Amino acid sequence: MNDQHEKLERPRVQAMDEILGKQFKVLNDGFIRVVDYMGADESIVQAARVSYGKGTKKVREDIGLIRYLLRHHHTTPFEMCEIKLHVRVPMDTWRQWIRHRTANVNEYSTRYSVAIDASQTTKSDQWRLQAKSNRQGSEGFIDKKTGAELTRKEKELQQLCRRMYEERLETGIAREQARKDLPLSTYTEAYWKTDLHNLLHFLRLRMDEHAQYEIRSYADIIGNEIVSKWCPITWHAFNDYWFNGQSYSRLETEIIKAIAANNNEKAIQLAKEFGLLKYKDGKIKSNLERNELEEKLKELEIEPPWKEVE
Amino acid sequence: MNDQHEKLERPRVQAMDEILGKQFKVLNDGFIRVVDYMGADESIVQAARVSYGKGTKKVREDIGLIRYLLRHHHTTPFEMCEIKLHVRVPMDTWRQWIRHRTANVNEYSTRYSVAIDASQTTKSDQWRLQAKSNRQGSEGFIDKKTGAELTRKEKELQQLCRRMYEERLETGIAREQARKDLPLSTYTEAYWKTDLHNLLHFLRLRMDEHAQYEIRSYADIIGNEIVSKWCPITWHAFNDYWFNGQSYSRLETEIIKAIAANNNEKAIQLAKEFGLLKYKDGKIKSNLERNELEEKLKELEIEPPWKEVE
Amino acid sequence: MNDQHEKLERPRVQAMDEILGKQFKVLNDGFIRVVDYMGADESIVQAARVSYGKGTKKVREDIGLIRYLLRHHHTTPFEMCEIKLHVRVPMDTWRQWIRHRTANVNEYSTRYSVAIDASQTTKSDQWRLQAKSNRQGSEGFIDKKTGAELTRKEKELQQLCRRMYEERLETGIAREQARKDLPLSTYTEAYWKTDLHNLLHFLRLRMDEHAQYEIRSYADIIGNEIVSKWCPITWHAFNDYWFNGQSYSRLETEIIKAIAANNNEKAIQLAKEFGLLKYKDGKIKSNLERNELEEKLKELEIEPPWKEVE
Amino acid sequence: MNDQHEKLERPRVQAMDEILGKQFKVLNDGFIRVVDYMGADESIVQAARVSYGKGTKKVREDIGLIRYLLRHHHTTPFEMCEIKLHVRVPMDTWRQWIRHRTANVNEYSTRYSVAIDASQTTKSDQWRLQAKSNRQGSEGFIDKKTGAELTRKEKELQQLCRRMYEERLETGIAREQARKDLPLSTYTEAYWKTDLHNLLHFLRLRMDEHAQYEIRSYADIIGNEIVSKWCPITWHAFNDYWFNGQSYSRLETEIIKAIAANNNEKAIQLAKEFGLLKYKDGKIKSNLERNELEEKLKELEIEPPWKEVE
Repeated sequence: MNDQHEKLERPRVQAMDEILGKQFKVLNDGFIRVVDYMGADESIVQAARVSYGKGTKKVREDIGLIRYLLRHHHTTPFEMCEIKLHVRVPMDTWRQWIRHRTANVNEYSTRYSVAIDASQTTKSDQWRLQAKSNRQGSEGFIDKKTGAELTRKEKELQQLCRRMYEERLETGIAREQARKDLPLSTYTEAYWKTDLHNLLHFLRLRMDEHAQYEIRSYADIIGNEIVSKWCPITWHAFNDYWFNGQSYSRLETEIIKAIAANNNEKAIQLAKEFGLLKYKDGKIKSNLERNELEEKLKELEIEPPWKEVE
Repeated sequence: MNDQHEKLERPRVQAMDEILGKQFKVLNDGFIRVVDYMGADESIVQAARVSYGKGTKKVREDIGLIRYLLRHHHTTPFEMCEIKLHVRVPMDTWRQWIRHRTANVNEYSTRYSVAIDASQTTKSDQWRLQAKSNRQGSEGFIDKKTGAELTRKEKELQQLCRRMYEERLETGIAREQARKDLPLSTYTEAYWKTDLHNLLHFLRLRMDEHAQYEIRSYADIIGNEIVSKWCPITWHAFNDYWFNGQSYSRLETEIIKAIAANNNEKAIQLAKEFGLLKYKDGKIKSNLERNELEEKLKELEIEPPWKEVE
Repeated sequence: MNDQHEKLERPRVQAMDEILGKQFKVLNDGFIRVVDYMGADESIVQAARVSYGKGTKKVREDIGLIRYLLRHHHTTPFEMCEIKLHVRVPMDTWRQWIRHRTANVNEYSTRYSVAIDASQTTKSDQWRLQAKSNRQGSEGFIDKKTGAELTRKEKELQQLCRRMYEERLETGIAREQARKDLPLSTYTEAYWKTDLHNLLHFLRLRMDEHAQYEIRSYADIIGNEIVSKWCPITWHAFNDYWFNGQSYSRLETEIIKAIAANNNEKAIQLAKEFGLLKYKDGKIKSNLERNELEEKLKELEIEPPWKEVE
Repeated sequence: MNDQHEKLERPRVQAMDEILGKQFKVLNDGFIRVVDYMGADESIVQAARVSYGKGTKKVREDIGLIRYLLRHHHTTPFEMCEIKLHVRVPMDTWRQWIRHRTANVNEYSTRYSVAIDASQTTKSDQWRLQAKSNRQGSEGFIDKKTGAELTRKEKELQQLCRRMYEERLETGIAREQARKDLPLSTYTEAYWKTDLHNLLHFLRLRMDEHAQYEIRSYADIIGNEIVSKWCPITWHAFNDYWFNGQSYSRLETEIIKAIAANNNEKAIQLAKEFGLLKYKDGKIKSNLERNELEEKLKELEIEPPWKEVE
């Protein structure tokens, strides 16, 4: 017997083992499957304790430790967990996904093989209208009748694109060139592997209400159906601190302090000094930073101290 | 003439050109020099406008745009600026510095050349005491008399280590092995190149009051003497949002909301529910998350609603 | 006067300054422009000399040093040079380009702005046939008559896709959704910034004859028109060692050694041992590794010692 | 039952499970332990087949596929395997190790805890002499008598450094400052996690005969005792192609071609043209590139065609 051989087993998470390989459906024909994972909440604690040496010891403090690490952006222990997903996703969504650089990727090659014969389709009640408040978002849906017409044309167009693709292949054109006019809605597949820290970063951005609906649908599944089972303590802390937390700039803190001290005069004065509050012809001028502060005050159920008219 | 040749020049920042190559002194024998830089505040705007296409146009909105990008963690435009520094730093500090992985590095090789003959020394009034509140910090200084004694011994030890190193070299021992017992206080030099986004991340962590004094000394110079000149708009926004900003968890937001509504009862109730507030034998139990919340309340000049004794 | 202020200027490369902003045309409507650059051949030497300290000094050895660094994969000094390009490229090509993760990117946003109204088009003599020898490549062109027909249909399809896109926008559909069926041939634009080491890695893969024609067209311009001017010594070494160099496995080296010693018997024996050479029914069996070795021998103008028939 | 649930299990490698947690001893007091791993040879194949889609199918071609991927630097499938090690290593060695940036790291914190009380010691027959041929290496050992003296002094110095460290702590000095004169030979510990591709890159550089003995000792264990068990097919291919393979520049290929054609005249002529071969006062001038070519020729058991004297 080797007395220096502290017998180890790879950490297992039963709830994860149960969903290994399971297809979580997304959009009309997409999916996410967990292919493999490394580590668990306990691995984060284990790694942190290496850093902190004999300094911390009590096992029942694990939750507190994970919350502390996440709150203070001590991110390296979260990198000790790794996950590998198999995803099927429209190329348009994949274009956004792949921008997260700290991940390992193997994508289905349409140079090597014939492109997947499936596209993201839109139901008649799913056509979203351009947001007015936000240049890059959507809000509300078009009426069903117009939607039905758009859906019909979408189908025709996708069929036509596919037919053209297959014609080119039949004529002998190389796959790498034949694919050039496939629509962005065409599905692709990939293995995508990343560590928990980078995954949480991905989720924070892509589960956000400003993220595009399509990628948000994938992110929601990864967060709520997968990470929540894999590392439940971390998932809970992530929601408290990162996802549902709120940040205040120095300026905002100063203004809230004045309001909390019932000094609305000073709050208004500060907002003016900071350039957040200006009036023109007696009317308040639009200002993005002030709008966001007002949103935050609303969350705190605090009335902004300034008026629409001077 | 090529009519498609929009004549370009590399962006210049005069205040940077003036300090190019200048040695900013740090610690007893360290320094930082700017060797080169790419881009400026205007390059961030330029890159962002590529992303946003024709959507944004008015030049006078540059400040607003940079502040918006930084506030919302749209970090990629900040990666469009790059800086190259030449630093001289104790190996112990370098051990922390090098943990920032997204940078390009060329360090002085003590395999190839004789180690730099300089160590970080400590004056008699610079010996810091172990912090009591914080396992990994320091607070206050030891008395000068004891300090003088420590300084004397430090000098002796450093001289002894150097003599041993040189003896080994004289005996013919390979540099790569002779160096093995050099003290961590030995200076090294490096070229260090990184982009502005990663540099700001470095500064946020290393200018923080919890960062170790030594690396904080370097970070302070980089921030206050260099970035402030290079990209002044970004620097200002960084200070408002990232460096002097404050984050509140979902739990904290809920509690502050109750306090702001003058409902201290509810605030106490929430703190109990969230596990932040417990009493034992009538006395409040220590809790790290509550301590941090109390710190934040203090910043807002709000009295915590709970009492030390139940 | 500060005597420690070694006056510095940012390295300039005149041949680069002359092409700054110039549009190099690629494909039917793409381009590459140099927006900014940092460093030059001399910066590589400067960084290497920091590593090697006082060990190397003679200025006239710069070429030798750069060649040495590149040959021995001492890659960090090459990371000290940085370049920023503005590119216009079909989304299909961008899909390959973006897989190079160590780069900074800002891409034109079709959530925020209307998609660029241009697609990659194919002339009648540019339709490539599927390669037979290589599953993922192309070889030769289809006859012009068939090509003309494909070109006509390509145009129709692209116009139809664009019309549908614009119809959706006119109906009020959000840009982020309307774009979903744009063809992969649609042009996008991006700022792309990377260091010289990673750029050379990109060029090695993308200038390779097996790279797809489209991305190779961009890589050729970057290499031959830009890097060759920016860092001519490095460019020359890159061509000698990385791009036009050749690698031999241990097995291949053993076999070549036997051939060089005029011991064909032994070479055949080794090829059999290594599993490269098998006969079935008296005929040589196809083997990918042996094919590649035969290609390399051909380059050396050495006749393979084995026969097609046993 | 969910018919879309292809039941999966995490790939297991029995030979790895048997060594999980086992301490492989390195140097006088260092070690390496495997803490966890993800994937196996089969995962590389699995990921590659996603890329290549239905193009490749036969299971018995796995070896050929892995060899093909490695030979052609198709590195992404190798990133699908991940390993986590627990290492104990002298800080001087760690300084080299940590330069590999694509890895996740948690290191023992000497701000938080008292430094590990162990240093790398050198036996009397282990003192290496400075290499003459190579500025940054070592060759041969010093005589045992001198070695014994160096070992005695090493011990004294290490004890003195430790005593000083402990004295400082006893005086109340903060751990973060007290450590500043610990010798580089002090052991540290870390969790180090990386993917197989980056690990092979690490091994190629650190198992190389030019790597420093200390880090080579660690790399040898990781390669020969761990990767060889984890992914044996990959390990074998790595040795054939990357580790024991050989590269020839375009110039070298030209010269070898001439030699192979028994045209020594031409080989000499080419060497002169390429600047590899110069004579001065009838004697051959030293040239690093030619020396390396001569080494490669020696491996092929080919006599260089040029003479020492003209």
